[in-house]
Amino acid sequence: MAKHSHREKILTVGLRVVHAHGFGNTSVRDIVQAAGVPQGSFTNHFASKEAFGVEIIDLYVSHTVEVILQTLRNDTLSPLDRLRSFIDTKTGRSKQNNIRDGCLLGNFAAEASDRSESIRLRLMEVFAAERASIADCLRSAVQAGEVSSDIACDEVAGFIVSSLQGASLIAKAERDPGAIERFKDVLFSLVLRRAISALHWQIEGVSPM
Amino acid sequence: MAKHSHREKILTVGLRVVHAHGFGNTSVRDIVQAAGVPQGSFTNHFASKEAFGVEIIDLYVSHTVEVILQTLRNDTLSPLDRLRSFIDTKTGRSKQNNIRDGCLLGNFAAEASDRSESIRLRLMEVFAAERASIADCLRSAVQAGEVSSDIACDEVAGFIVSSLQGASLIAKAERDPGAIERFKDVLFSLVLRRAISALHWQIEGVSPM
Repeated sequence: MAKHSHREKILTVGLRVVHAHGFGNTSVRDIVQAAGVPQGSFTNHFASKEAFGVEIIDLYVSHTVEVILQTLRNDTLSPLDRLRSFIDTKTGRSKQNNIRDGCLLGNFAAEASDRSESIRLRLMEVFAAERASIADCLRSAVQAGEVSSDIACDEVAGFIVSSLQGASLIAKAERDPGAIERFKDVLFSLVLRRAISALHWQIEGVSPM
Repeated sequence: MAKHSHREKILTVGLRVVHAHGFGNTSVRDIVQAAGVPQGSFTNHFASKEAFGVEIIDLYVSHTVEVILQTLRNDTLSPLDRLRSFIDTKTGRSKQNNIRDGCLLGNFAAEASDRSESIRLRLMEVFAAERASIADCLRSAVQAGEVSSDIACDEVAGFIVSSLQGASLIAKAERDPGAIERFKDVLFSLVLRRAISALHWQIEGVSPM
């Protein structure tokens, strides 16, 4: 029971420390000291620092899955409001961390995807899953007439995942949410506002050049 | 003279090593070993690893300035072709590094902006300069009628800088240029293709809802 609670503590506290300072910049010693457990606890529970890295990604992702269920899969909202709520909730989490921590997944992609194949593969799975959930939401938006049907939902979903990562990265460096606000403005005013114009072409019987 | 050439060698080789493996993951020992110079050379030329970090950012940025002059400031191309050429050249450089290295600036933002204020401030300056050059290019595109005049050039320029960073980051993790291709497709087909529709509203005398 004590062993189990040490494991949870190392993961919860370790996630916070790695998120704030980076995976490469954090030693196992830093983690056990912050968690207030003996160094041996770490080696008892994790085969390596790399294995621990994959587990904190999974812990972080479990929060993201919660966010997806509450936002992108929330049928009480219109599809575009679901997407907006998803982005607000994800970046709201960053705001709690003073923006400066950025997205844990993006940080891992930048600094650790070169050094650990298991971390890299886990990140790819997570990005792909996020992309698929957003693509489903966009397809619902097309069906609801909120977005033009000529949008390639999978492609735009991939664009949203990567652009949100980029906005979080710049916001982290600037310690200012401006980049995230710009991303949302451009996304909803330019990328996803084609339904009206498409409708107009249809009414007027004029094809876009 | 020999001292000078050691300095250049440490910077040129150090940039490559840090770009490939990350700043936190690279020790001064790694750098001098890769450059084939004595450890003392490093301390002779750089006050700290942090000061060296700022200098390799400047070296990397000097390449980016070259790219900007050849693309965004190239008057023989139309404004949107300048922007396309800028993105292609920037990401083409990444392709030479097998995509996996990503953008050095983005990597620094993710892993080192928390630990070094001088690196963080230098990154902010570089991102702001890139944003300003792209905004100028967009203003030219508006003047040339390639982009609708209702576009907020500074805001969209910021969006382009951050989204390109995000696309490079995902491409790095996936070791595949797909994210960069998606970014370009969405940027030029959805974000910057409003001139035609704006023109159409004007001709038809119909205002967008």
